[in-house]
Amino acid sequence: MKGSVGELGEFGLIRELTSRISGTPAVRLGPGDDAAVIAAPDRRVVASTDILLEGRHFRRDWSTAYDVGRKGAAQNLADIAAMGAVPTAILLGLVVPAELPATWPVELMDGIRDECQVAGAGVAGGDVVRGETITVSITALGDLGGREPVTRTGARPGDVVAVTGWLGWSAAGHAVLSRGFRSPRAFVEAHRRPEPPYPAGPAAAALGATAMTDVSDGLIADLGHIATGSKVRIDLRSAALDVPAQMNDIGQAVGVDPLTWVLTGGEDHAIVAVFPPDTKLPARWRTIGEVLPARGRGLPQVTVDGAPWATAGGWDHFAS
Amino acid sequence: MKGSVGELGEFGLIRELTSRISGTPAVRLGPGDDAAVIAAPDRRVVASTDILLEGRHFRRDWSTAYDVGRKGAAQNLADIAAMGAVPTAILLGLVVPAELPATWPVELMDGIRDECQVAGAGVAGGDVVRGETITVSITALGDLGGREPVTRTGARPGDVVAVTGWLGWSAAGHAVLSRGFRSPRAFVEAHRRPEPPYPAGPAAAALGATAMTDVSDGLIADLGHIATGSKVRIDLRSAALDVPAQMNDIGQAVGVDPLTWVLTGGEDHAIVAVFPPDTKLPARWRTIGEVLPARGRGLPQVTVDGAPWATAGGWDHFAS
Repeated sequence: MKGSVGELGEFGLIRELTSRISGTPAVRLGPGDDAAVIAAPDRRVVASTDILLEGRHFRRDWSTAYDVGRKGAAQNLADIAAMGAVPTAILLGLVVPAELPATWPVELMDGIRDECQVAGAGVAGGDVVRGETITVSITALGDLGGREPVTRTGARPGDVVAVTGWLGWSAAGHAVLSRGFRSPRAFVEAHRRPEPPYPAGPAAAALGATAMTDVSDGLIADLGHIATGSKVRIDLRSAALDVPAQMNDIGQAVGVDPLTWVLTGGEDHAIVAVFPPDTKLPARWRTIGEVLPARGRGLPQVTVDGAPWATAGGWDHFAS
Repeated sequence: MKGSVGELGEFGLIRELTSRISGTPAVRLGPGDDAAVIAAPDRRVVASTDILLEGRHFRRDWSTAYDVGRKGAAQNLADIAAMGAVPTAILLGLVVPAELPATWPVELMDGIRDECQVAGAGVAGGDVVRGETITVSITALGDLGGREPVTRTGARPGDVVAVTGWLGWSAAGHAVLSRGFRSPRAFVEAHRRPEPPYPAGPAAAALGATAMTDVSDGLIADLGHIATGSKVRIDLRSAALDVPAQMNDIGQAVGVDPLTWVLTGGEDHAIVAVFPPDTKLPARWRTIGEVLPARGRGLPQVTVDGAPWATAGGWDHFAS
């Protein structure tokens, strides 16, 4: 495909985008009408929306359009999984400059479609408008399959904290890219394209998880939401956190304690959940801490080996 | 409230925004977790998404933040109604510059909340990020209540075309504002804040409408989607189209045939539907035309009094 988005025109671009996607059983009526119709067999629908901006959430010189699509879809689909739901569909709102090559939104759509396929969801609809800054707004929907949603408010003292998926890989990849390098490739890839463990969300709900979230802002920050919401303290055991040898090497090269990436790095979309103490967890879950009674107001409610994590803190999108 | 969005910070702003909304029965779990949970009693959910950009879809000197919120919500909720569904919830994605007064997004949220209330929906969740251009991305959800969705593809020759709601009022208001005037107030208000006839959508579905859409791009353009989708021609009777005396006056003042606004003006979100010929329509529907067999390819499939409308054409957001 040649030419810019402006040359292709609104309807031409929409035609190109919709030609990239195919139907799924859950998407009863796809793009092309006033609205889409999506199956919601549970009689409830789980819904989450996120916005990605060029320059803030992605860079075109670091990530391909395809990767931005995969990542944008992944972060929303992970939110659905983290409620204990199975993703069913996404809707895409897209702002594109007229001079942008038309291949960019088309490859973005390919990435969104492929990530949806991994999660079992379909692309149900969207909107495309012309504007200055590339903006990708994604809304994901999901089905609870009869389970109760697992929120951030149900953790109780005595419960155990367990995680599945990757931690700190995206942050390590970001550190590599920030210094102008393109390898180690595994971490760069992890930054460009997270791999959330979608089936683990519904599985954790079925196992009786009392609280759950995906790690989008960093393990300590996101567990902080559970601690606050559940009015408990969470203590992590650093020895239980997996720091791969190669991540250690990068840490040494750039002068960063790699445990910082594991504890505070976001965007990998691991799933962290709290379970009753006697829960038999599947193989890919690692128990990393325990739930304790809350401490006094103002004290950190997430600790590592009993102490506050000095360099902790999430990601305030307005502060940076 | 004083200060800018940047001074308030991401979490401060989210706190302010969520404090403006209240729960509704359909929103089972509102903002504050990984995702929202919304009732979908029909076992299907209707979903639509739209993006509004400052400078393209609204101007801060023409519309208050409250009006932008009402309008943004209205255009999405109207899409839900035009499928024959009852709106249940919306999700908001918001891009705001750090230097924007914090009152702006807060009043936007008030407008969204109030328009949702008119339509019977609730605000279920959202995302807020910092960026250069104010961007409002809204996803609306709705429930079909056991009815089949009314698409754009079911019109048959012999059916009648009927409309309810306002036509051309927003365009006339835009003409007034473009010339630097602030009155007649009714049209300016209609441009700032459309009033879609939400209950008419599900009612038309229950009456057996064979095709339906809301008028967002202009009557001829939107009926064109039905004509194309249904492979029919639609002929409108100009005498049946209501041109209010005051709209005639504005037309004379600015040198525009007001029928142009009625036939091609968008953003009022009237609901236009196609019914079997023997349908007894409620009082507020006006029959404005009929469905005929399609003409040859390349010929206009929407005509007015049997002839193409010379100045017709919808709104290509990329062309302007």
